[in-house]
Amino acid sequence: MGIRTDLAVEAHEIWMESTNEISERSGVSAKEYEREGFKITRVEILDENGAREIGKPVGTYITVELTNLIKRENDAFKKAVLAISEELRDMIEDNGAKGMNVLIAGLGNRNITPDAIGPAVIDNVMVTRHLHYKMPDEFKSFANVAAISPGVLGMTGVESGDIIRALSGKIKPGLVIAIDALASRKLSRLCTTVQISDTGIIPGAGVGNARSRIDRSTIGAPVIALGVPTVVDAATLAEDLLSDSGITIGDSQKTLREKGDMIVTPKDIDKYIHDTAKLMGYAINIALNPGLEITDVDMFLS
Amino acid sequence: MGIRTDLAVEAHEIWMESTNEISERSGVSAKEYEREGFKITRVEILDENGAREIGKPVGTYITVELTNLIKRENDAFKKAVLAISEELRDMIEDNGAKGMNVLIAGLGNRNITPDAIGPAVIDNVMVTRHLHYKMPDEFKSFANVAAISPGVLGMTGVESGDIIRALSGKIKPGLVIAIDALASRKLSRLCTTVQISDTGIIPGAGVGNARSRIDRSTIGAPVIALGVPTVVDAATLAEDLLSDSGITIGDSQKTLREKGDMIVTPKDIDKYIHDTAKLMGYAINIALNPGLEITDVDMFLS
Amino acid sequence: MGIRTDLAVEAHEIWMESTNEISERSGVSAKEYEREGFKITRVEILDENGAREIGKPVGTYITVELTNLIKRENDAFKKAVLAISEELRDMIEDNGAKGMNVLIAGLGNRNITPDAIGPAVIDNVMVTRHLHYKMPDEFKSFANVAAISPGVLGMTGVESGDIIRALSGKIKPGLVIAIDALASRKLSRLCTTVQISDTGIIPGAGVGNARSRIDRSTIGAPVIALGVPTVVDAATLAEDLLSDSGITIGDSQKTLREKGDMIVTPKDIDKYIHDTAKLMGYAINIALNPGLEITDVDMFLS
Amino acid sequence: MGIRTDLAVEAHEIWMESTNEISERSGVSAKEYEREGFKITRVEILDENGAREIGKPVGTYITVELTNLIKRENDAFKKAVLAISEELRDMIEDNGAKGMNVLIAGLGNRNITPDAIGPAVIDNVMVTRHLHYKMPDEFKSFANVAAISPGVLGMTGVESGDIIRALSGKIKPGLVIAIDALASRKLSRLCTTVQISDTGIIPGAGVGNARSRIDRSTIGAPVIALGVPTVVDAATLAEDLLSDSGITIGDSQKTLREKGDMIVTPKDIDKYIHDTAKLMGYAINIALNPGLEITDVDMFLS
Repeated sequence: MGIRTDLAVEAHEIWMESTNEISERSGVSAKEYEREGFKITRVEILDENGAREIGKPVGTYITVELTNLIKRENDAFKKAVLAISEELRDMIEDNGAKGMNVLIAGLGNRNITPDAIGPAVIDNVMVTRHLHYKMPDEFKSFANVAAISPGVLGMTGVESGDIIRALSGKIKPGLVIAIDALASRKLSRLCTTVQISDTGIIPGAGVGNARSRIDRSTIGAPVIALGVPTVVDAATLAEDLLSDSGITIGDSQKTLREKGDMIVTPKDIDKYIHDTAKLMGYAINIALNPGLEITDVDMFLS
Repeated sequence: MGIRTDLAVEAHEIWMESTNEISERSGVSAKEYEREGFKITRVEILDENGAREIGKPVGTYITVELTNLIKRENDAFKKAVLAISEELRDMIEDNGAKGMNVLIAGLGNRNITPDAIGPAVIDNVMVTRHLHYKMPDEFKSFANVAAISPGVLGMTGVESGDIIRALSGKIKPGLVIAIDALASRKLSRLCTTVQISDTGIIPGAGVGNARSRIDRSTIGAPVIALGVPTVVDAATLAEDLLSDSGITIGDSQKTLREKGDMIVTPKDIDKYIHDTAKLMGYAINIALNPGLEITDVDMFLS
Repeated sequence: MGIRTDLAVEAHEIWMESTNEISERSGVSAKEYEREGFKITRVEILDENGAREIGKPVGTYITVELTNLIKRENDAFKKAVLAISEELRDMIEDNGAKGMNVLIAGLGNRNITPDAIGPAVIDNVMVTRHLHYKMPDEFKSFANVAAISPGVLGMTGVESGDIIRALSGKIKPGLVIAIDALASRKLSRLCTTVQISDTGIIPGAGVGNARSRIDRSTIGAPVIALGVPTVVDAATLAEDLLSDSGITIGDSQKTLREKGDMIVTPKDIDKYIHDTAKLMGYAINIALNPGLEITDVDMFLS
Repeated sequence: MGIRTDLAVEAHEIWMESTNEISERSGVSAKEYEREGFKITRVEILDENGAREIGKPVGTYITVELTNLIKRENDAFKKAVLAISEELRDMIEDNGAKGMNVLIAGLGNRNITPDAIGPAVIDNVMVTRHLHYKMPDEFKSFANVAAISPGVLGMTGVESGDIIRALSGKIKPGLVIAIDALASRKLSRLCTTVQISDTGIIPGAGVGNARSRIDRSTIGAPVIALGVPTVVDAATLAEDLLSDSGITIGDSQKTLREKGDMIVTPKDIDKYIHDTAKLMGYAINIALNPGLEITDVDMFLS
């Protein structure tokens, strides 16, 4: 199947379309609910059978759909921050990492706009690890947070997983939060969806090839991944459009297959990345520091 | 027809595909040749009949295909600069503007990467108008060049055509060169093709809606347009893929129609814009200043 | 005297230091008051005698000192926006330009950080002129605002005053607001002071040489200038440090005189420019659109 | 003494000025010569006595003065690349690191222009470590190079020395090249001087406070530091100007002492950083890959 998606909610949809009998469906559960007015989908891959069916590792995948945000309601930003931070906080707690020291890893290439979401989130994160050393009393009520944007293989010559592993060995975080750009199947999900999962991350999966996995088994601490779909693989779009028909493969489609580096993205992706990075950074800050208001984060970062 | 292209060479192809009889084909001529190893296509729209058929104004459209440049031959940059500058110089001469004072207009939005080619070219152009005033003797052998990046309607509230017209009324150029991002139909042409035409330009045609025309009739001087396709309209790609089949319109295709702001672009468009802007800026400098070497331009701009 | 300042409040201080007798002091008035907790100084140059004494054109110069903002009080941003917008609104009214169509000009070079304040303010301004054409009913309660960043002479080959004059001739604004970087004498004023004046502006005065004036006489409409000191001329700092002593001119001082392009600036000037541009843009929006809240501006610009 | 400099050549000058008797001068040697037309100064601190006198660790400090480059001679860039690369290559050989795998560390904060030289150099470096894994035959003639921009303490919460140490433990380089912004005493040296030393580096020394040292003892491999002065501490400039006089400390000087974050820098520092980063990146590439031409580097990086 030529369709590529990093979203479990889409992989689940595809699987549901392809299996006709209820009886075949096991090892996977999905449910929907609302938080702060946003639709949340929770896909759980329960066992290896489910993992094989869906094509994603065993674990929990939360999807927050931010379509309301687009409508520019007055407090849409605040509500979206709350929805994401509450889901993230629950997942941290479910993974036994509440109150642990945190390393936040902003994956991706800051020089390729749709891949820059990880480094851009880091710019919105309240980094405090050094402040805990310098002023332990003043900061004892804040989460202890370190952050790194390791760059990508082509820039550093080193797998970003190796950099994070090396740094984790040094600073021993009790939780890693990894942020990355994702590819979705549907255009309608671009920059309107956040996926939170506890299954770790494969750097470069978003806009490139698979690389060494960052997860609990390689890091020695829970790894929670936050991802935002910023591109649809152009070849995926073509496959999707043509999937139901028997038509011959045309020139553009061939080009798409050859040029794996063509993407479909919103025209003003630069602005989307800026805005979404702020949203995610604030959600992380508030998930890690319950009780903080958005204006507190504004002041800390200014 | 849902297919959108700003390239005359593509509009001509589409027209050739749709007309079966030679006898119908009048008002348009096309020929191909090589310059510095690059394939050049010259489409001439000779009369109103041709204009109606092709859907572009009467005039000359040169396309330089830079596919060889991709192969990274040692002097590919130099050869491409030469090929473009020679075609541009010929067109300037054909339009009676040899030796005239020049205004170069870098159209588009510098904050939207695929639309930023115009402003980015301006950064690579040898601007000398003020130096002619200050040091007339030292600069008498250089072309007299002014430049502006007028911004886009959403940023300024003013049509960029109006800004250029107002400035032209003030500084009275004998030639306007306008640079803009284009949309192509085929992915294979993205960032690998330069179009040079003497029919003027409609700002915003590249990644937005049509606006007031910048041409000889509105400016009072010849307007030569340089364009580079940086996007394929996502809806065009879909139409193209589906054009020969009778399949039902699916979800993604509908989204594409609704969301006119989805584009297909190379993943590393940021780098393409940077490199292509340098190529075009240098080609303009050398077209306007025959005898200049690339190293001379390097030094002037440093 | 080698001391250079674009701030009337400093020129006034220097003049006060140099004149001993009260009787000599005429043609100039100065008073201080508070607004939203910020210290405001109002210097009025009343006649040509005052202009000659102070070295600035006849007119009104308001200085808002933002030192409280530095203290990061919770609503410091909001209060500073109010203080500047109220002073600006008064000056617009005093100049008979209330309710007029506005052209906002962001002067300076966006590629030189301390000179980029003008273009950066434009990014924070609510541009509506085109929306009044498209949707007159929806926008009739908003000020009609156009904006331009004309670039600098070295980039365009054209005086920015000429570009603004040409554009004003086309769109006929009833008020021009021009924003520029200034040089101050005192380090303590860098990025902590906003000057508002109704005497027009000389583009390039901030970080370069004097150029053609933009004022009521050249534009045909009132010109209100907003300036922020972002640099102290390094030579001015040296003069200031040495002014009271009779010491020999040393090596560094000589270098300073030769290298007019050395500046003293805060280390994190990039961040200051970003923050101050937002402050000024919001103050302009609220001065032109009474009743708007900061959150309304957030939403318009997002 | 309030004078701050990261350049050994300046520390040596200051020391020479302060010691009157030849007999006192031991433990330090200095000599001057030319390479590719540029003046080179070699200061060697021979023992702990010299280290105490000069205030720098024992080792070799090469200074390349690029003043000729300013003159824009035709091949100035090429000659400067050669001069720096030859000095760097000699120092690598003297430290027994010829042919070793290299880790290049671009220190500093990419968001503060004068501190961004380290990350900017990384963008100009030929990173090959991953290519040696993927295509060992094609790359066996190239140096094996990894690179990282670790960020600064305020961004990451982790000392950059700790990040480099952790990564070195993982990839075991035989040589670390660390690039950082420096502070000089004299304005005339800003962006016109490159210092190469084999004594390691203290991250943050350039535009901030001292941090944990990166040198052979902490990394386990030779550490060669490349530095470029991009700022004069404003307080240092003031001290320097006033040093010979007995004048009272004035307002500006007090402000300078309080505001340690004021710097003196060239007006167009953005451009200097861009150009100098390219120069240093190319010099490193050619030092590590003898026989490579500038055009080869152009092609590799494009």
